[in-house]
Amino acid sequence: MSPFPSSALRTEDWHHLRVTRDDGVATVTFARPEKLNALTFGAYADLRDLLAELSRERSVRALVLSGEGRGFCSGGDVDDIIGATLAMDTAQLLDFNRMTGQVVRALRECPFPVIAAVHGVAAGAGAVLALAADFRIADPTARFAFLFTRVGLSGGDMGAAYLLPRVVGLGHATRLLMLGDPVNAPEAERIGLISELAEEGQAGERAAALARRLADGPALALAQTKALLTAELDMPLAASVEMDAATQALLMNGEDYAEFHAAFAEKRTPKWQGR
Amino acid sequence: MSPFPSSALRTEDWHHLRVTRDDGVATVTFARPEKLNALTFGAYADLRDLLAELSRERSVRALVLSGEGRGFCSGGDVDDIIGATLAMDTAQLLDFNRMTGQVVRALRECPFPVIAAVHGVAAGAGAVLALAADFRIADPTARFAFLFTRVGLSGGDMGAAYLLPRVVGLGHATRLLMLGDPVNAPEAERIGLISELAEEGQAGERAAALARRLADGPALALAQTKALLTAELDMPLAASVEMDAATQALLMNGEDYAEFHAAFAEKRTPKWQGR
Amino acid sequence: MSPFPSSALRTEDWHHLRVTRDDGVATVTFARPEKLNALTFGAYADLRDLLAELSRERSVRALVLSGEGRGFCSGGDVDDIIGATLAMDTAQLLDFNRMTGQVVRALRECPFPVIAAVHGVAAGAGAVLALAADFRIADPTARFAFLFTRVGLSGGDMGAAYLLPRVVGLGHATRLLMLGDPVNAPEAERIGLISELAEEGQAGERAAALARRLADGPALALAQTKALLTAELDMPLAASVEMDAATQALLMNGEDYAEFHAAFAEKRTPKWQGR
Repeated sequence: MSPFPSSALRTEDWHHLRVTRDDGVATVTFARPEKLNALTFGAYADLRDLLAELSRERSVRALVLSGEGRGFCSGGDVDDIIGATLAMDTAQLLDFNRMTGQVVRALRECPFPVIAAVHGVAAGAGAVLALAADFRIADPTARFAFLFTRVGLSGGDMGAAYLLPRVVGLGHATRLLMLGDPVNAPEAERIGLISELAEEGQAGERAAALARRLADGPALALAQTKALLTAELDMPLAASVEMDAATQALLMNGEDYAEFHAAFAEKRTPKWQGR
Repeated sequence: MSPFPSSALRTEDWHHLRVTRDDGVATVTFARPEKLNALTFGAYADLRDLLAELSRERSVRALVLSGEGRGFCSGGDVDDIIGATLAMDTAQLLDFNRMTGQVVRALRECPFPVIAAVHGVAAGAGAVLALAADFRIADPTARFAFLFTRVGLSGGDMGAAYLLPRVVGLGHATRLLMLGDPVNAPEAERIGLISELAEEGQAGERAAALARRLADGPALALAQTKALLTAELDMPLAASVEMDAATQALLMNGEDYAEFHAAFAEKRTPKWQGR
Repeated sequence: MSPFPSSALRTEDWHHLRVTRDDGVATVTFARPEKLNALTFGAYADLRDLLAELSRERSVRALVLSGEGRGFCSGGDVDDIIGATLAMDTAQLLDFNRMTGQVVRALRECPFPVIAAVHGVAAGAGAVLALAADFRIADPTARFAFLFTRVGLSGGDMGAAYLLPRVVGLGHATRLLMLGDPVNAPEAERIGLISELAEEGQAGERAAALARRLADGPALALAQTKALLTAELDMPLAASVEMDAATQALLMNGEDYAEFHAAFAEKRTPKWQGR
C-alpha cells in the first residue's frame, strides 16, 4: 500500500474484466469472449479505475493484460459504443474520449511494467491498449489493426499518433494509422511492434513468465526505468541526463543497490526488496 | 474549395512540373527528364505555391509525387542552383534555403496524404521531398541518397535532420546524412524508409492505386490523422492524448461516422463524404 | 586550435585510456584489458576532460572509441565504483552521476563524428558510451547489455532512456533497459543498434577506415550535420527547418561549397578545407 492512502476503497468486482493477483503479479483479462472482448463504456471506466487502484497498492510489481477466447480485444463495441456516441452531445463525446485516453496514460504512468499477451485480434482500442503496454508478447495468430479511419475517425485515437511513431517510426506508423490494415505477427516483429514472438498458444504463458521475472526483480529500479522512458520521450537530452543522474543518486542510496553489492561479494543471487 | 477563399487565382501552368487531377487525386510529376528531374529555383517556388493552391482547393484528397524518365528526382541542379548560389549574398541564401524548407513544411502540413512513387534516383532534395511524403512506394531500381555533405553542405537540409531520425531511428539517420551513400530498395525496406516495395516499373501504378483508395476514403478523418501524426511528433504524451480526444469528439459529430454506423447496420460499404 | 583558446593546458597522460592522433583522427582506447576495460572514477573524469580538450583542438576531425583485449568496455567497475559509491553521501552520488552523464553529453556535442568500434562486451556504461557515438561498428562477437537493473539501478543511466528509444524505438528500448539482457550482433543489426556489422576481428579496422574517410571530408559540414541531428531531436519541425536554412546559408558562404563546384566543373575530387 502507498504510504499515503486515501479513503478510497478497493473494488472487488469489475465489469467484463477478470482480475487476479499472485505474489506481485496482477493479471487483467478482457472477459467478454462472446464479443471478442469488445470494450463497453463500463470496461473503459473500470480499466481507468483499476489501474489507479493497482498503482496505489504497492503489492503489484508487474501487470499482464490478456484476452479470453479467440483474441485479445476487438476494440470499442460497435453497438454499445459507436451507436451510443451518435446520440451524445459534444461535452459527452469529449468526456468519453478523454476517458479512453486516461486509460492509455494510466498504462504509461503506472509504477510497474505492463505486458500485453496478444493472440488473435488486437483491433482499434485493443491495438492501442497493447501499444501502451511496456512489452507486447504475441503469438503467430496475432493481428494488430488500428481500425479508426475505417469507421470515419482519426487514426490518432487514445495517443496512438504519439506512441506508434515512437515505437515503429513515422513511416510505418503513418501507414498503419491511415489505412487501418491488419499487421500480422511476422510484420509486427519486423517493424518493432512486438517485444517477443511466442509459439502459438504460448503468449499468455510467456507473458506470465516475464511478469514473474519482473515481479521478482528490483521493483523500485524497474518502476524508475519505466518512468524515465516515459518522461524522456518528452524531454531534451540535457534535462534527461540530469534526471538520470538524480534518479541514480536516489537509487544508490537504496537497499537494493547495497544488496546487489553484498550478493556479488558473497557470490549469491540478490534478494530484491524494491527499496 | 475552402469556405474561406481569398482572391488568389489558380495557376494553370507550372515550371518543370506536370500537374493532373482525377476525381480527388492530384498527381505532380517532376518533368525535366533530360536532367534527371533536377530542381531549379522555379521548380521549388512552384512546388511551394502549388501545395498552397491544392491545400485551398478542397477537391484534392490525395497527392502523388513522381518523376518522369529514368528516376524520381536528382535534387538541386548543380549548374542552375549550386552555381547561382555561389553568387548570392547572405540574405538571398537564406531566402533560398527557407523556400526549400517551406516545400517540406507544405508537404507535412497539407490536408491530404502525399504518396511518393520512387523509381531510380531520389537524391539530395529529391530524397528529402520523398522523405516528407506520408507514403513512399519504391520499386527495386530506387536509390535514396542524402548527398548534401558530398557538396560541402550540412546533411540537415530542408528538415532532413528532423525527419529522418523519426522515420528510421537516429543510428541509420546519422549514417545516411553524414555519408550520403545511396540506400537501395532492400535496405530502404529493412530500415523503414519505404512504405511498400513494388515490382519493377510498378511504383507509379501502386501509388495511383493507394491514392485512389485514400481519395475514396473518409477525407476529413484522414486529414486529421495526418495532422495529428505531424503535430504529435512535437508534443508530449498528455497533450497528445487531449488533442486526440478533442479530434475524435469533433469527428464523432461528423457525417462520416454516422454513415459508418448506418452502413454497418445495413451491411453495406460506407459512402464517405469527407465531412 | 579554437580561435578562442583559454589558458587550459593540453594533458599528455590519461588514466586507463590510450590516446593517439593521426592526421585528424583521434583514437581513444579503453586500456585496462585485465579488467575487461572496466571504468574507474578516473577514467570517467578523463573521458570528460579529454573530449573537452579534443573539442577545443581543431585538429581532430573524427574520433574512434575502442577497447583493448577481449572486449569494448564492461562498464563501471564493481569494486572500484559500486563499492565506493555505497560509502558516498547524496551530494557525492549526484556529482558522480552527473559526471558520467557529462561524458555522454560531450560525445553528443563534440564537433566531430565519433565511431565506436565494438567487439566482445559493451556492458553497462560501456553500452551507453557506444550508444552515444554517432556510428557503432560491431563484429560478430559484440554483445551489448544495458545491465543497470541487474545491479538495482535504473536502466535510464547517462541518458540511455533518452537515446535508446530514439535509436531502436520505444519497444526494443524498454525491453533492453528493463531486462538488461545481452543483445548480440545480429539482433543489434536487425533493430538498428549498429551502423555496420564487420567481419570478426575487423571492427577496429573498419572504424579506422570510416574515421579516415570522415576526417578527409568537409569537416565543418560534417560537424554541422552532427549538431543538427543532436539538436533537432529536441526541436519541432518548423524550428528545425529554419535552423537548417540558416545552417545551409552559412555553409553556402564557405570555402568547401565553392570548392565542390570548382572541382565538379574541373571533373576532379574536391580538396576539403573544413571552412
